[in-house]
Amino acid sequence: MAEKTEKQKMLAGELYWSFGPELTAERKAARKAVRAYNTTTEEEPEKRLQLLRELGIKFDKSSPPFIEPPFNCDYGYNITMGAQVYMNFNCCILDVCPVKIGSRVLFGPNVQLYPPGHPTDPLVRNGLEGPEFGRPITIGDDCWIGGNAIILGGVAIGDGVTVGAGAVVTRDVEPWTVVGGNPARVIKHLAGKAA
Amino acid sequence: MAEKTEKQKMLAGELYWSFGPELTAERKAARKAVRAYNTTTEEEPEKRLQLLRELGIKFDKSSPPFIEPPFNCDYGYNITMGAQVYMNFNCCILDVCPVKIGSRVLFGPNVQLYPPGHPTDPLVRNGLEGPEFGRPITIGDDCWIGGNAIILGGVAIGDGVTVGAGAVVTRDVEPWTVVGGNPARVIKHLAGKAA
Amino acid sequence: MAEKTEKQKMLAGELYWSFGPELTAERKAARKAVRAYNTTTEEEPEKRLQLLRELGIKFDKSSPPFIEPPFNCDYGYNITMGAQVYMNFNCCILDVCPVKIGSRVLFGPNVQLYPPGHPTDPLVRNGLEGPEFGRPITIGDDCWIGGNAIILGGVAIGDGVTVGAGAVVTRDVEPWTVVGGNPARVIKHLAGKAA
Repeated sequence: MAEKTEKQKMLAGELYWSFGPELTAERKAARKAVRAYNTTTEEEPEKRLQLLRELGIKFDKSSPPFIEPPFNCDYGYNITMGAQVYMNFNCCILDVCPVKIGSRVLFGPNVQLYPPGHPTDPLVRNGLEGPEFGRPITIGDDCWIGGNAIILGGVAIGDGVTVGAGAVVTRDVEPWTVVGGNPARVIKHLAGKAA
Repeated sequence: MAEKTEKQKMLAGELYWSFGPELTAERKAARKAVRAYNTTTEEEPEKRLQLLRELGIKFDKSSPPFIEPPFNCDYGYNITMGAQVYMNFNCCILDVCPVKIGSRVLFGPNVQLYPPGHPTDPLVRNGLEGPEFGRPITIGDDCWIGGNAIILGGVAIGDGVTVGAGAVVTRDVEPWTVVGGNPARVIKHLAGKAA
Repeated sequence: MAEKTEKQKMLAGELYWSFGPELTAERKAARKAVRAYNTTTEEEPEKRLQLLRELGIKFDKSSPPFIEPPFNCDYGYNITMGAQVYMNFNCCILDVCPVKIGSRVLFGPNVQLYPPGHPTDPLVRNGLEGPEFGRPITIGDDCWIGGNAIILGGVAIGDGVTVGAGAVVTRDVEPWTVVGGNPARVIKHLAGKAA
């Protein structure tokens, strides 16, 4: 049986090394597309969508996302977005594994989605030459992620959630709640939850 | 009696839709001026001030602000600045309603001023096609807003305040205090307050 | 005895004024090099290192740092980096005094290192025309500084530390610990610490 490639390990959430030729080439291509995206203007909506497609970002064609540049991501092809998604300036998605964003989700400026992790043991971690691993992020429908908030790898956010500006979300968040703080805690349960 | 335009509702702090033709055109013009500003260098102080004027930012002509690019804002014309204001790299002002900054105010890098709010009810919020509203921000004279701090809409910060780096300011701040944390709390009352 | 220049005061950690001709000229040169760096691509590793050298950043020639643009700093020449250092997008080092980074240190995106301080007394602070001062930052070997974390001036971080994403580090951090929160507190002591 053939050994897994580093990319296969990355996508499987296993420890992997990111500086081999395959992943380095993919990141180069993604950074090139990201740079092109970040020089587009509001007069070029078609070019923006074309570059998102080039990055491999999967989105609803009948209601594509509006992403204000500058935007940053690692690969692009791990990102899925539903309908009516808006991302304000300077959002960053380190998509080393699946990042699934629902429909009607609003992102403030500077929102940071961080799937990658490094070993906590400093000697295993080993700087630039060490291994890393990814954990997926899921964001449900009808969420508002406040500006400068951080969502860590492994976190699933339910439908209808409001994440306060500057919150650091380290654990799963129940649907129809408002969370905030560092680490984020539930501030409010909303009445009228469908479930 | 004529109905209010979306811009009039925005400025009045009422629920409004931001993607109509008038506000979309204004944002396009502002983003164009912001992009131009963000390519200027230290050798072009006059061009920088000209672009701030083009954005409609009101400032003290005898002592204009020094804003390090990149800088970002939504419209520009809602921003007023006193004398001797300094903003470091990457500050962001989502000025959907008045943002009033006093004299001798220092901003660290990445400071985020967030007037806009979205309905907490996820079904009313409705993603990219939903309504939003703005709440003004006021910052007094002689303040220092630490890097990566966030100030939410509706907040008034008194004179002589120090906001710690990374603080998330969700409520009004008394003059001559030091605040920090997420959410920000008073860390220190300064002696010698004029009042 | 000749009086100290503003630069000498800055480097000594004393109150100084940053808008005199010498420091202004140095910042202009640094911003020019930073702008050049931030337009480089992955295809130009040699040009990147050349620009880091031009900034005066001291690093290990046999194992130079990998710094993703955009990157920002104030002068450059106050920064020292060990081997195998990685900095992700949008990191910012306000190096008005020595910032020493060990070997095998990983920085997430948006990490903010803030040596500069301003007087807490608002009347002494005096906005853009007031004095400021710097306090050094030291980061040991084998650390991981999570994305969007802030490290304040005067802080020394020991070897083998993990700083959680979004943490605001206001005090020294013991080796082989994990810290997080705002302000950052110890979350975990790692077993196996060499000392």
